[in-house]
Amino acid sequence: MKINKYPQKEIWPELVKRPIIKREEITEIIAEIFSKVKENGDQALIDLNKKFDKAEIKNINVSEEEIDNAKGVISSELKNAIQQAKENITKFHASQITKIEKIETTKGVICWRENRAIEKVGIYIPGGTAPLFSTVLMLAITAQLAGCKEIILCTPPDKNGNINPAILYTAQLCGVKKIFKTGGAQAIAAMTFGTESVPKVYKIFGPGNQFVVAAKDFAQKYNVAIDMPAGPSEVLIIADEKAIPEYCAADLLSQAEHGSDSQVIFISTDLRILNETIEELKKQIKELPRNEFAQQSLNNSHFILLNSVDEALEFSNLYAPEHLILAIENFENYIDKIQNAGSVFLGNYSCESAGDYASGTNHTLPTNGFAKNYSGVSLDSFVKKITFQNLSQEGLQNLGKTIEIMAEAEGLLAHKNAVSIRLK
Amino acid sequence: MKINKYPQKEIWPELVKRPIIKREEITEIIAEIFSKVKENGDQALIDLNKKFDKAEIKNINVSEEEIDNAKGVISSELKNAIQQAKENITKFHASQITKIEKIETTKGVICWRENRAIEKVGIYIPGGTAPLFSTVLMLAITAQLAGCKEIILCTPPDKNGNINPAILYTAQLCGVKKIFKTGGAQAIAAMTFGTESVPKVYKIFGPGNQFVVAAKDFAQKYNVAIDMPAGPSEVLIIADEKAIPEYCAADLLSQAEHGSDSQVIFISTDLRILNETIEELKKQIKELPRNEFAQQSLNNSHFILLNSVDEALEFSNLYAPEHLILAIENFENYIDKIQNAGSVFLGNYSCESAGDYASGTNHTLPTNGFAKNYSGVSLDSFVKKITFQNLSQEGLQNLGKTIEIMAEAEGLLAHKNAVSIRLK
Repeated sequence: MKINKYPQKEIWPELVKRPIIKREEITEIIAEIFSKVKENGDQALIDLNKKFDKAEIKNINVSEEEIDNAKGVISSELKNAIQQAKENITKFHASQITKIEKIETTKGVICWRENRAIEKVGIYIPGGTAPLFSTVLMLAITAQLAGCKEIILCTPPDKNGNINPAILYTAQLCGVKKIFKTGGAQAIAAMTFGTESVPKVYKIFGPGNQFVVAAKDFAQKYNVAIDMPAGPSEVLIIADEKAIPEYCAADLLSQAEHGSDSQVIFISTDLRILNETIEELKKQIKELPRNEFAQQSLNNSHFILLNSVDEALEFSNLYAPEHLILAIENFENYIDKIQNAGSVFLGNYSCESAGDYASGTNHTLPTNGFAKNYSGVSLDSFVKKITFQNLSQEGLQNLGKTIEIMAEAEGLLAHKNAVSIRLK
Repeated sequence: MKINKYPQKEIWPELVKRPIIKREEITEIIAEIFSKVKENGDQALIDLNKKFDKAEIKNINVSEEEIDNAKGVISSELKNAIQQAKENITKFHASQITKIEKIETTKGVICWRENRAIEKVGIYIPGGTAPLFSTVLMLAITAQLAGCKEIILCTPPDKNGNINPAILYTAQLCGVKKIFKTGGAQAIAAMTFGTESVPKVYKIFGPGNQFVVAAKDFAQKYNVAIDMPAGPSEVLIIADEKAIPEYCAADLLSQAEHGSDSQVIFISTDLRILNETIEELKKQIKELPRNEFAQQSLNNSHFILLNSVDEALEFSNLYAPEHLILAIENFENYIDKIQNAGSVFLGNYSCESAGDYASGTNHTLPTNGFAKNYSGVSLDSFVKKITFQNLSQEGLQNLGKTIEIMAEAEGLLAHKNAVSIRLK
C-alpha cells in the first residue's frame, strides 16, 4: 500500500503507470492453437479441453437437456435477481437505439445513417474462480437488442465437462441458443475460423485471461473485430471530507478481490478520510474469502492526498480509470470536468457493484488507460452505422460543380466525369 | 474483366474474395522505423524524409508562412468548392451529436451516457499521386465538431520539401494548427510516441499505402487506437433495366482510377444493361489520364448477371462493399435488405463522387469486407461515451438485494459487502 501526500505533478506520470503486460512470449502458443483449430475443428477443441481444462468431453455442444437441468438448479431468489438486472440492462441499452434522421445538406441532397446489427457475434465467458453470468447478461442482452441474428457463447467446461448452471440459465434467458464447451485461445480460434459445431463470427466480445486477450488480439489478423483491448480491472475513488470511509473501503475491496493484478487508487482531499479508509480496509479485508487476491492487489495500490477535487480529477483524467467513484458532495459540479473514464459512480450510494450487476449500465469497460480512446460496450458495439444518400437531379445540379472542381484538383478525372456525364 | 452469367450460389464465395494482402514481410521494416523514431525523434523523421521521400528539410513543422502562401495559391473557385463541401460535411456530422438522456431504470437509479472528445487525435494524409485534401475535410471537420483539443496532421513532403497547398489550405480552414512534414510508417510512429515537435496522440485516422496500414496496425501495440483496419477501395453497383449504362460506367471508372488494386463489381438483372455498360467502359476509359490504373483494376473486376435485385443484394451482403450504388427504380423498397455496406448511393443521380467530396457523408469507410463488422468514420469515431450512474439511498434499497444475491452467486463477497455495508 503506497501512500503519497501531495505528490508533485512531475511524479504523476509515475503514479498512473500500469503494470507492463508482456504478450510476445505467448504469441507462438496462440499461433499454434489457432492452426490446430483451423485444421482439426471440433476435434482440436476436444483435445485442448483435455489438455488445458482436464475435461474429457465427447460433444462440445451444450445440449437442451443440460440447459433444462440448469433451470432446475438455480434458486428462484437468484432467478428473480437476474430478472431485475435483465430488465434494467434492457431499459438502459434500449434507450441507445437511435432514430433515423434524414438531413438535407443541400437542396435535393438527402443524407442519413441507419443501424444494421452485426450479423454474427460471439461471446466469451471465462471459467476460473468466478462464474461470470453477469457478463452473459451485459453482452447477450445488448446483442439481442441490436438484432444480431446469430449470437453464440463459448465457455470452458469444468473437470467433469460441465458448465456452471448460472451461465447456462442466463444465456438461454437472453436468447442465446448455441453454447459451446470450449475455453481459452482455442475458443477464440473456433469463433474466428468456425468449426463443424461452432459458427464463425464477425465480432468477439468478453473478458478472459492473458491467453484469451492475446488470442482476441491475434484473431484480428483474420478480419474478426473485437470489443476492445483489455487489461486488469481498475477503480479510482475520489473522496472529500463528506465521504464515508466504510463505504470507500468496501468499494476498494470489491475491485481488489477481482484478482491480484487489479488496480486500486484512492484519492482524498482530507487526511482523516484517507487514514480512516485505510483503517477500514484492514478491518474489512479479514472477512473476505478472496482476501489473498485483495491483499496482493492492495499492495500495489496508491493512496493519495491532494489539495482539491479539481486536482484529483486532473489526476484521474491522466490515469483514465475503468471505474471512477466520486464520493463527494456536490458531484454535479464536477461531471463536466471528467474527461477520461469508463463508467462513473456518483455519490455515496452509487457503489461499483451496482453497475457491475444490475443498475443497467454495461460493465464491459475500457481498462489499462484505454478510457482515453475507447468507450465501454454499448448497443453501438453490436451495430454498424451505414450512411445513405439520395441526390435528385436538382441535388446533383446544386452540388455538381463543387464535386467537379474538387475532383479535378485531386487529379481524379474519372470522379469528375461521373458528375459531368450526368449534368450533360 | 470477368463476366459471370447467373453464377451458382456455390461459387459466390469465390467471387466475393478479396486479393490477399501479405503484411508479415514488412513487419520488421515497420518495427525498425518505430524504434528509430522512438529513439531519435525529429532527427529520425528528417533522416527518413531523405531516405524515403528524397526530401531534404531542416524543420518538419509547417510554418505559418507556408500556410499563408498556400492560401494565396488556391483559386477562389476551389476555395468556394471546399467551402460548400465543408458546410455539408459539417451539417451532416453535427446531426450526429447526441443529447444526454437520463434513464431511471429502477426508482432512485439514474443512468446515462455523456460524450467526451478524444483529447488528442492525429490525421494522416498520404502524398503520392493524388493530394487528398478531401480527406482532410472528412477527418478534421469531424474532429473539430467532436471537440478534440489537439488535432494534428502528418503528410509527406514532396522532393522540394513542400506540402501540397490544397492540403495546407484545407487543414488551416478546418482549424488544424499543427501540421508536420512526415509520411509513411515514420509519421505513424511519431504520432504514437511523440517527438520533440510531433505530439503523441490517442487515436490515428487516415488512409495510406501498405506501410502506413501496417504501421497503424503496429501502433496499436502501444495502446494507440486507429480509425479502422484498411484495404483497397471498392464499389459494387446493382443495376436494373432502368439503369443508365453511361452513368454506371463512369461510376465504375471513378472507383477503378484510385489504383490498380481497386475492386469493382457490377451486377445487373438485365443483359442489355450489362453489355452496354461494358461497351461504355471501353469508350470512357480512353479519355482518362489515370487509365492505366483503371485498366488494371478492371482486369480483376467482376460483371455479374443475376435474376433479381433481391438476389443481387444477397450477393452484395456477402461481399460487404465499401460503396454500394443502387442504380435501380424503387430503391426505397430495398433499403431494409441492405445488411453489409459502408455507404449506399441511391438512384441514378447519386454518384459515388458526391459522397467522396461534398454531399456531407464521410468518405472514410470500411473496405475489404470490414463493412460486416465496422462502421465508417463519424462523429462517434472521435468521442468516447462515458456511462454515469447515481443511486439515491432509496435507489440502492430497491436494487440492493438483487446485487447482493448476484454477487454472492458469482462468489464475489466484497462486491456484495459494498452493498450490505450501505444498507445496514
